[in-house]
Amino acid sequence: MKLISSLLAPAVAAAALVALPGCNPPGKSGAGDAGKSVAANSAAARTWVAPGQKDEFYLFYSGGHSGQVYVAGLPSMRHLATIPVFGRYPGTGYGYDEASKAMLGDYTWGDVHHPGLSKKDGLYDGRWLFVNDNANNRIARIDLRDFKTKQILGPIPNSMGNHGSSFVTDNTEYVLVATRFSVPLPKGRYADPANYEKEFNGMVSGIKVDPTSGTMKVGWQIITPPFDWDLGSTGKGPSEGWAFWTSYNTEMAHDNLEANASQKDRDYAAIVNWKAAEAAVNAGQTTMLDGVAVIDPAKTPGVLYYLPVPKSPHGIDVDPTGRWVVAAGKLQPVASVFDFEKLQAAIAKKDFESEFRGVPVIRYDAALEGEVPVGLGPLHTQYDGAGNAYTSLFIESAVAKWKMPPWSADERADLNKVVLDKIAVHYNIGHLVVGGSDTKKPYGKYLVAMNKLSKGRHLSVGPSQPEDSELIDITGKKMELIYEAFTEPEPHFAQILKADAISPIEVYPKAENDDPNAVWDAKDTGATRRGNVVEVKMIAIRSHFTPDRIDVNEGDELVLHVTNVEQTPDMIHGLGIVEQNVNLVIDPGETKTVRIKMTKTGVFPFYCTNFCSALHQEMQGYLAVKPAVAVATQ
Amino acid sequence: MKLISSLLAPAVAAAALVALPGCNPPGKSGAGDAGKSVAANSAAARTWVAPGQKDEFYLFYSGGHSGQVYVAGLPSMRHLATIPVFGRYPGTGYGYDEASKAMLGDYTWGDVHHPGLSKKDGLYDGRWLFVNDNANNRIARIDLRDFKTKQILGPIPNSMGNHGSSFVTDNTEYVLVATRFSVPLPKGRYADPANYEKEFNGMVSGIKVDPTSGTMKVGWQIITPPFDWDLGSTGKGPSEGWAFWTSYNTEMAHDNLEANASQKDRDYAAIVNWKAAEAAVNAGQTTMLDGVAVIDPAKTPGVLYYLPVPKSPHGIDVDPTGRWVVAAGKLQPVASVFDFEKLQAAIAKKDFESEFRGVPVIRYDAALEGEVPVGLGPLHTQYDGAGNAYTSLFIESAVAKWKMPPWSADERADLNKVVLDKIAVHYNIGHLVVGGSDTKKPYGKYLVAMNKLSKGRHLSVGPSQPEDSELIDITGKKMELIYEAFTEPEPHFAQILKADAISPIEVYPKAENDDPNAVWDAKDTGATRRGNVVEVKMIAIRSHFTPDRIDVNEGDELVLHVTNVEQTPDMIHGLGIVEQNVNLVIDPGETKTVRIKMTKTGVFPFYCTNFCSALHQEMQGYLAVKPAVAVATQ
Repeated sequence: MKLISSLLAPAVAAAALVALPGCNPPGKSGAGDAGKSVAANSAAARTWVAPGQKDEFYLFYSGGHSGQVYVAGLPSMRHLATIPVFGRYPGTGYGYDEASKAMLGDYTWGDVHHPGLSKKDGLYDGRWLFVNDNANNRIARIDLRDFKTKQILGPIPNSMGNHGSSFVTDNTEYVLVATRFSVPLPKGRYADPANYEKEFNGMVSGIKVDPTSGTMKVGWQIITPPFDWDLGSTGKGPSEGWAFWTSYNTEMAHDNLEANASQKDRDYAAIVNWKAAEAAVNAGQTTMLDGVAVIDPAKTPGVLYYLPVPKSPHGIDVDPTGRWVVAAGKLQPVASVFDFEKLQAAIAKKDFESEFRGVPVIRYDAALEGEVPVGLGPLHTQYDGAGNAYTSLFIESAVAKWKMPPWSADERADLNKVVLDKIAVHYNIGHLVVGGSDTKKPYGKYLVAMNKLSKGRHLSVGPSQPEDSELIDITGKKMELIYEAFTEPEPHFAQILKADAISPIEVYPKAENDDPNAVWDAKDTGATRRGNVVEVKMIAIRSHFTPDRIDVNEGDELVLHVTNVEQTPDMIHGLGIVEQNVNLVIDPGETKTVRIKMTKTGVFPFYCTNFCSALHQEMQGYLAVKPAVAVATQ
Repeated sequence: MKLISSLLAPAVAAAALVALPGCNPPGKSGAGDAGKSVAANSAAARTWVAPGQKDEFYLFYSGGHSGQVYVAGLPSMRHLATIPVFGRYPGTGYGYDEASKAMLGDYTWGDVHHPGLSKKDGLYDGRWLFVNDNANNRIARIDLRDFKTKQILGPIPNSMGNHGSSFVTDNTEYVLVATRFSVPLPKGRYADPANYEKEFNGMVSGIKVDPTSGTMKVGWQIITPPFDWDLGSTGKGPSEGWAFWTSYNTEMAHDNLEANASQKDRDYAAIVNWKAAEAAVNAGQTTMLDGVAVIDPAKTPGVLYYLPVPKSPHGIDVDPTGRWVVAAGKLQPVASVFDFEKLQAAIAKKDFESEFRGVPVIRYDAALEGEVPVGLGPLHTQYDGAGNAYTSLFIESAVAKWKMPPWSADERADLNKVVLDKIAVHYNIGHLVVGGSDTKKPYGKYLVAMNKLSKGRHLSVGPSQPEDSELIDITGKKMELIYEAFTEPEPHFAQILKADAISPIEVYPKAENDDPNAVWDAKDTGATRRGNVVEVKMIAIRSHFTPDRIDVNEGDELVLHVTNVEQTPDMIHGLGIVEQNVNLVIDPGETKTVRIKMTKTGVFPFYCTNFCSALHQEMQGYLAVKPAVAVATQ
C-alpha cells in the first residue's frame, strides 16, 4: 500500500484505499460492499455528500394526492423537508392553529401536480413556489423565505380539474392554468353528461400575481371546448407572452375515455396569447361568469389558436431560447418540434387547416420543424441549455437525449441521427426534470427521472409502494444513472433550484411579529375572562410555558395565544394538550392561536412536543377544567 | 492512468479512477466532489447503495408529533415509506375511507415516541410494530405483512401521557406502558393541581396482545405516585418477566417543573414484576377503576419496587444477556450499571433503604455494579451484543462506547478505563439505536444517532427545521460517522430490522377479501337506491372505473364501494372526486368504502389519482348531482 500511495497524488491514493477491503471484481458488488465497479464507485463519490457538507441544489417535487411538496437535496437526494400545502400536517402544526385552519377551509386534501418557481426576466428569482391542486381546483403559493404556504386560492370559478398548471410567466405576471375536466358552467349547474359536447366546457385561466406581495387573484379566463387540457408551458424570448397546453379527448367523449378519447390521430394543443387576453379584458371584451371576466375566443380573435399534435399528447415544452416548442404524444413514438417563428408566420398568413368553434387550427406542417423518433411513449421534454433535449419515454422506460434544432441537412434527412443517447429508467417514467429547463438559462448537470412504478427496486414495504426517482448525470456525452431514491406518492413534476439562489430565514424577527396577541414577557402573560370565553396569552421559552396552569370551566371556550419568544434557530416549541386534540408548533418568533371548546372536565396536562433543551421533558403544565356543577356551587 | 491501472487489482484501479477528475487534496472536498479523503471515500462506498440494489436493514423510526412512522433503508438511509398511524394521510388514503376514519376517531394527531417490534423468544419475529401516542394515550399496532396500521387502542383508561412505551415482552405477551403525566383518577375528575401529591396518580399498564391476531386490550394496571415515568425496557433471560422505567419529578412538583422537578439527587426507577402483576390480577387482588383491574402495589407486595438512580434519568436499558441494567441521568455524567442478580438478592434480603407509600426502595449500592463516567448528559444506552454499550450524551453531543461488565479489578478500580471511544454527533443527541439492541442477539454493525438539533447541517429550509440522523459504523474499534440524513419531526426512537426477517405481501389476494361489498366483475357493479341512500359498487382496473357515471340527487347520501380488482404489485388506483373531498386509495385486491352527503348540485368529475398505466389520464368519470327541485318536477 505504501508503494502505491507514494506513486499517486494524495487524492488518488485516498481513493485507491477505498476499494481494498472488499477487492471484489467489478460488477459483482452488492449493497454496501466496498468493492464496486468503476461506474459504481464514481457514482458513489459524486452523490454521497459528506456529513456536514451541503447539497448543491434544492429539488422541489410535488407530492401528488398527498397534497404536500417535498424538498430534497441534489445530488444526495436526501429528504430535507415536507412542506404541507393542501392538507393538515401535524409535524409542523399546519392546519391546527386558527390561521392555517382557515386557509385550508373544508377540504382535507389536494392533488399537487406541477410546482412552478417564480421568475424574473425568465430566470428563477427564488421568491415563491406555486403549486396546483387538481382535485379541488386551487393554487397555492409557498414563500421561499420561510418555506411555508402563504395563500391558497380557490376553488377557481368555472374550472374543474386544475391540472394544467402551475406555469409561471417570465416575470411572474401570471400563473397560467387550464382545466383537465369539463363541466356545465357555471359550476353547480346540472346537465346530463350525455350532452357533453353541447353543455360542458373547459377553461384557461390567468391567475394574476401581485409583484410585491405575491398575492394571487383570478385575472381572466378563456372558455374552451370540453377538451381535457393536459400539460403546458410558457413562452420566453421570442415566444414571451404566449403559453401552450396539450390536450387529450378532443373526441369530446364523456364515457369510457380509455377507448373513446383515443380515436383521433391528433389532438389539439392550445396556443394562447396571454398578453392579448389581458388586453381583451382591459378592453372589456368579456362576459362575466361567476364573477370572472371570461373571453370567448370566437369573438376575440388572436387570443387562442389550436395546433394539432400527435395523439394523446402529454408534454409541450418551450426550450430555453423560446423558439422551439416540443410536444410529445404518448401513443406515437415521436417528439414533434415546432418552430415558433413558423407558427407566427402561419398565423400571420392565416395558414390554417380548419377552425373549431370559431378558433383557427394552425396547419401542423406549417409550424413543424421535424418529428424526432425519440422512442415509445414520449411524455415530457426538458432542456440542458447546451442544445440538448431529454424526453421521458413512458412505454420504453427510458430517457432519450437528442439534439435540438438547428439541424444539418444530413440530420434533417434522417432525424434518427439527432437521437444521441438513451438510458433505461425503472420503471415507466412520467415526468423528468433538468434544473432550470423552463428558464432562459438551465443549470444542466443533473436530470431526475420520476418513475411511476418502483416494483422490485426497494425493500418491500407492502402494497402501498413508494415512487422511484433516479438521478442521472447529464454532464457527459452519455447519460449516467448515479443514484436512486424513493419518494412518497406521487411526484408528478419537480423543479430544481440552485442552493445559493435563496437564503431562507430561520427565525421570525421579533420586530416583524404583528400579531396583536403576541406577548414577549412573562409579566404580560395571563388569562382574561369575557363571559364564557377565556383568553390566555402564553409564552414558550426554554424550558417553560408561562403560565403553566390554565383554569377554565366546563362549557367555556378557551382562546390560547402562544408566542415562542426564542430568537435562536431551531428553537421550535410545540404545545400539545393531552386528550384535547391541540397541536400547536410555534417557530422562533411566531405567535399561534387555537380556540377550543371545553367539553370535558378534569385535568389535562400540556407539554412541549418539539425537543428544545435538556429540560424539555419538564416543559409541561396543566389545563384544569372544573365541572359546570362545581362552578354553580362556588 | 494506464500504468497505474496495470499495477493494481481491478477493484483498486476502479477506485483510483474515481478521484482523478477532481484531484483535490484530501479534506478540501465539498459536496459532490470526486476528490475525497480516505474516510470519506470509504464511507461513500459503504453507504451508497447502487440503483437496483437493496438495503440490508429496515429502520423504523417514530415521527413524533407528526403521528407517523417512517421507514428508511440502512445503510443508505433512503426514505422508503411513511406509515400513517395517528393522523390522516392523503398519500395512501388513510383516514379517508370509512374503516380508517372510524379507527382514527375524533383525534386528528398523535405523538409517536417509541416503536417496539414484536418478539418471540427474545428475538424480533417480524410480525408487528407497536407505537405509542403520548398525546392521546393510545397504542397502535402496525402489521408488517402489509405495513399498515391495524388497531388503535385507547385512550387508555386511568392514563395521561402515554410516553413510557411501547416496550414489548420477550414473547409479545404484553406491550408495557407507563404514564408520563399524572392526573386525578378516574379521568374526568377535577382536583386542584395544588393538591398534586394527594390527588394525582400515575399508572403502569400491561397491554395484553393476542398471540394469534395481535389484537390489544388493556390487561391490568398498577397505580403509582405522581412521578413522571419516562423511558423503560423489558427484561430478558434472567430478568425475563420484569420491566424497568426511569422517572423524573419524584419531587412531585406540579408547577415550574424546570426548577421544581430537578431538586433531588436521585429519582426512582420502577422495577416491575409483570408476571407477579398478572398473577395478582388472576388472584383478584385488584380494584376496578374505569373498567380496568388496578393493582395497589402497597397491598400486593412483590409487584413493584423502586430503585434510586442518578438525577433526572432518561433511559434504563436491559442488555442482551438480561443481567445488566443501565440507567443514565441527564444531569449527572455517569451511566449506572445495575446487576439484576444483586437486585434480586437485595429484594430477597429486603436490603431496602426505605419505602415510599408502601413500596420498598432498594438500596442503590446493593444493586449497583458500577458508575461509568460516560460523559455529559447521558440519556440512552444501546448494545451491540459483543459486550459493548453505546450511550448518547446529550450535552456533549457525542456517543460514548464503553465496555460492559464483567470488568477486571483494574477496570473496576478506575471505570474511566472501560470508556473505549467517543464520537461527536450533530447536535444534541437524544436517542440512539443499534439494531436488535433490545433483543438477545443484537445485529450490531450500525448505530443511528437521532440528534435533536440539525442547525447548519443541511440546506436551509426555513424556521421549521428537520431533525438530523447520523449513521455510525460500529464494526471497528473506533466508531466512524459515515452518513447523515434528515428526518421529519421528530424521531424519538427507532428500531432496526434485518431486511430478510420479513416478506411483506404486495397484493391483497382476492381470496382473502371478505368485504361484503367487494365486486370483481363489471356485471356485478352498479347502483342501488334505498330511499335517499344510493349505494354504488364499483371496480377499478387499468384504466377505467366501472361504472364511470354515477347519478344522484341533491340531498342523497352516496355510499361508494370501490374494489381494485388488480392482482399485480404496484397497481394501485386512487379515486378522487373533484370538489367533493373524496380521496380513496385502493391497493390491489382491496375494497374501500366512503359515504358522502350530496349537498352540492352539478357535475363532479372523478379520476384515478395514482398513476396506473399509459391511459391513466383517461381513467375518469362523472358524478352527476341533480338539483332537488329538478327531482320534484321529474
